Amino acid sequence: MLEKIDLGVTIDKETYRSEKDRLAIRLGELQRTLHEMGIPVLIIFEGWDAAGKGTLINELLMPMDPRSFRVHNFTKKESEDELFRPFLWRYWTKIPENGQIGIFNRSYYSDLIYRKSINDRDLRNMMKQANEFEQVLSEDGMIILKFFIHISKKEQKKRFSKLLGNDTTAWRVTTRDKKENKHYDKLYQKANRGLEQTDSGCAPWTIVEGEQKDYAIIKVFSVLEARLEKAIEAAKAAPKIEHAPLIHVGDRPFRSKILDGIVLDQVVSEEDYKNEIKEAQKKIRLLQYELYRERIPLIAGFEGWDAGGKGGCIKRLTRNLDPRGYTVYPTASPSDIEKKHHYLWRFWRDIPKNGHLGIWDRTWYGRVMVEPIEGFCTQAEYDRSYREINEFEKQLTDAGAIVIKFWLQIDQDEQLRRFKEREQNPEKEWKITDEDWRNREKWEIYKIAVDEMLLKTSTANAPWVIIEAQNKYYARIKVLNETIAAIEKRLNL
Amino acid sequence: MLEKIDLGVTIDKETYRSEKDRLAIRLGELQRTLHEMGIPVLIIFEGWDAAGKGTLINELLMPMDPRSFRVHNFTKKESEDELFRPFLWRYWTKIPENGQIGIFNRSYYSDLIYRKSINDRDLRNMMKQANEFEQVLSEDGMIILKFFIHISKKEQKKRFSKLLGNDTTAWRVTTRDKKENKHYDKLYQKANRGLEQTDSGCAPWTIVEGEQKDYAIIKVFSVLEARLEKAIEAAKAAPKIEHAPLIHVGDRPFRSKILDGIVLDQVVSEEDYKNEIKEAQKKIRLLQYELYRERIPLIAGFEGWDAGGKGGCIKRLTRNLDPRGYTVYPTASPSDIEKKHHYLWRFWRDIPKNGHLGIWDRTWYGRVMVEPIEGFCTQAEYDRSYREINEFEKQLTDAGAIVIKFWLQIDQDEQLRRFKEREQNPEKEWKITDEDWRNREKWEIYKIAVDEMLLKTSTANAPWVIIEAQNKYYARIKVLNETIAAIEKRLNL
Repeated sequence: MLEKIDLGVTIDKETYRSEKDRLAIRLGELQRTLHEMGIPVLIIFEGWDAAGKGTLINELLMPMDPRSFRVHNFTKKESEDELFRPFLWRYWTKIPENGQIGIFNRSYYSDLIYRKSINDRDLRNMMKQANEFEQVLSEDGMIILKFFIHISKKEQKKRFSKLLGNDTTAWRVTTRDKKENKHYDKLYQKANRGLEQTDSGCAPWTIVEGEQKDYAIIKVFSVLEARLEKAIEAAKAAPKIEHAPLIHVGDRPFRSKILDGIVLDQVVSEEDYKNEIKEAQKKIRLLQYELYRERIPLIAGFEGWDAGGKGGCIKRLTRNLDPRGYTVYPTASPSDIEKKHHYLWRFWRDIPKNGHLGIWDRTWYGRVMVEPIEGFCTQAEYDRSYREINEFEKQLTDAGAIVIKFWLQIDQDEQLRRFKEREQNPEKEWKITDEDWRNREKWEIYKIAVDEMLLKTSTANAPWVIIEAQNKYYARIKVLNETIAAIEKRLNL
Repeated sequence: MLEKIDLGVTIDKETYRSEKDRLAIRLGELQRTLHEMGIPVLIIFEGWDAAGKGTLINELLMPMDPRSFRVHNFTKKESEDELFRPFLWRYWTKIPENGQIGIFNRSYYSDLIYRKSINDRDLRNMMKQANEFEQVLSEDGMIILKFFIHISKKEQKKRFSKLLGNDTTAWRVTTRDKKENKHYDKLYQKANRGLEQTDSGCAPWTIVEGEQKDYAIIKVFSVLEARLEKAIEAAKAAPKIEHAPLIHVGDRPFRSKILDGIVLDQVVSEEDYKNEIKEAQKKIRLLQYELYRERIPLIAGFEGWDAGGKGGCIKRLTRNLDPRGYTVYPTASPSDIEKKHHYLWRFWRDIPKNGHLGIWDRTWYGRVMVEPIEGFCTQAEYDRSYREINEFEKQLTDAGAIVIKFWLQIDQDEQLRRFKEREQNPEKEWKITDEDWRNREKWEIYKIAVDEMLLKTSTANAPWVIIEAQNKYYARIKVLNETIAAIEKRLNL
């Protein structure tokens, strides 16, 4: 892409002034409209060092309402917190909320260009993941613009020299910068290939000729104007979708019936339970240290029928663990801030550091169970969720994580028995709510959703493990043993 | 305190079992009551390495509803993100929200004991700040409990030896641990002094004899039971306070009238403005790099009458800055999560890293302006806010920050003129709301609140700077020049 760029383009002072004033006013208006409509915008600035990204960002902020934007700066070198997580983590956690403009000063694109000691396969995988990231957010309604600010090797050298010539700015030019200029041609090839491979319909690149500042500003502003206007028009023209339940009894003939095939007749004596659980808890504590030493993160998700025993299993799983190395995340209704983001955002935020365990009591799978059943998402959102979730988990396992998902299965009679027991036990009464009873009435609908979910999201890298949970002892032991097995497999023990 | 502890205490197996079962059920109940009442609890675990903090924490989590607690582990060594901020930052950002239990595995107390190369004066100051932290949160309704798990030098050595004797656990005993055991007696003196100096009515220490695990568990559980019961009783008995406006016209005779004394007749020509602002923007860009090199953070807060020109001043201040080094935080109404925390929490969260600039468009001073005027806080909350805010800013400046606060002053006629101008200008119409008109009617009441605020919170370390803002040019230049002066003073230029 870069080879077709004429870096000699300029704009005269008069055009610059009049256009800039007009565009500044217009961008302010568009921003307010986007804010009112709740549309998020992500603007990525990339380009050579000293290309003027900072200046462009500041110019862009001038007409904006400061309540509506946030600039995030990404360094070429990741912090320890970032380094110990999947490479998309630092970007996912900083996406703009609905109605906000997020500006990324550098991004995963720089990761792709500047990373050293990375083989081609890993690099291609990172690009794939970056593209997935953009697609997921764009399908969710985010407008994504990417600007690459381009200057020549000669111009870059000139700018560095100018900085070096002044005592107060000389220190800003690092050894790394000088090296970058020296290896400009090599980086140019990488940058060019990277641009080609990450240019997409939902998140296209704009190459900005950066040698004349005025030209660069007007180009960025104009591209933004055109794109934002188009997006607003499209959003206004989009038919309003009434949310309604998406799954109904009898919906899917010939569907696979995974849940129906689960046998629930396990029996475990109290004595066996006590011995086995103790043994397993000892073992998993040691394995936790191994994971820590090897810097392998483990992500365990618990789903299952209400009163299926998720909480009890999690308590037995964690009882003997070192609390410095694990966190349990109960998934409640999203907060107002969480609602203003893609549904995966809050799970990305809590992804554990390498070597740590993250355990979720209910998970991102709410997206394909309660949401379509209650009509909290659209058909299109529901339909693409399986792919989004599989990509999400693949990104985690590609980054080295063990991902394991438990479905706790009981039958309807057992659930009723547990509900009643809870109601009659003053210590457990708080655990049962009207919502539990309402969900129970939708048993058949949930079955459809769960069967589909188990089918579509049980992957080689992140399998679903069915836990026969009619017998609590059996369930708890199986959860521990399956977790142990997954860890041992990973550690090649 | 430690010298009075008998480490030989034990409890028999039978008492342990029956008491533990009773206490576990009781703590579960108390937790749910606290959750319903919206009372936050902070439990701090400190003590020797290998004293069994992890086990105690896990035992404590067993009876709890996982939706209501969160464990935070603090390492002895801070991460870069933490190291580059005031030492209380990592604790403030992790306080439990209302109705939640936050468990700190180690805390600022470890900072006090284990920090090396720190002089006595700094140490005393850190203790003072830790006490302030506890007082602020406790006055806000948080229940704070601190447990120090105590074992003898001999016992610690025995436990390390046991770990070292097993291949799978040997690596857990670090050189540092061995050193700790060797220097136990010296650390004992430090720990003891630290305990004495941080024991307070609102956040008392409980020394837990840690040599017999059973005893330690029952002691921690029992102390928790007693303290939580008492707190719930006290909260139930507390009279319900109706929130109502706390400031009225004519309230305070003989009050100082700072605003009335401000002269607003400044005139600046457009030409002078353009030259001076350009000069100042160039200068501040260079100073920004100096701050970065010296790792000095700058915190600038903007307050002032509606339409006083805060946004315009901030834009001119930041226009030429490197966007990698500053962030503007507009302060809107708190989100639902923010509302569940102390009002200073969200400002602590955004405290810039050393070397960076944090600029607030409206600030924590809302607590002593809009909140008492609209009746969003109680009289007691309002009364202690001045002290809380002064302590907050002192903690920032003690940590090396430059803190500067601008009050943008215009008169009532000028405000009216600007409101009308905004209403008539389609590009500015969005800036004016019904609330602005309502606030305008309360001008006299705001004057009382602002005069009091300027008087009580203008400190040597964090002064208020009055900006005569009737003339926008004058105001912008003054903001820049005052910021420059504050930086130069700090850099000894």
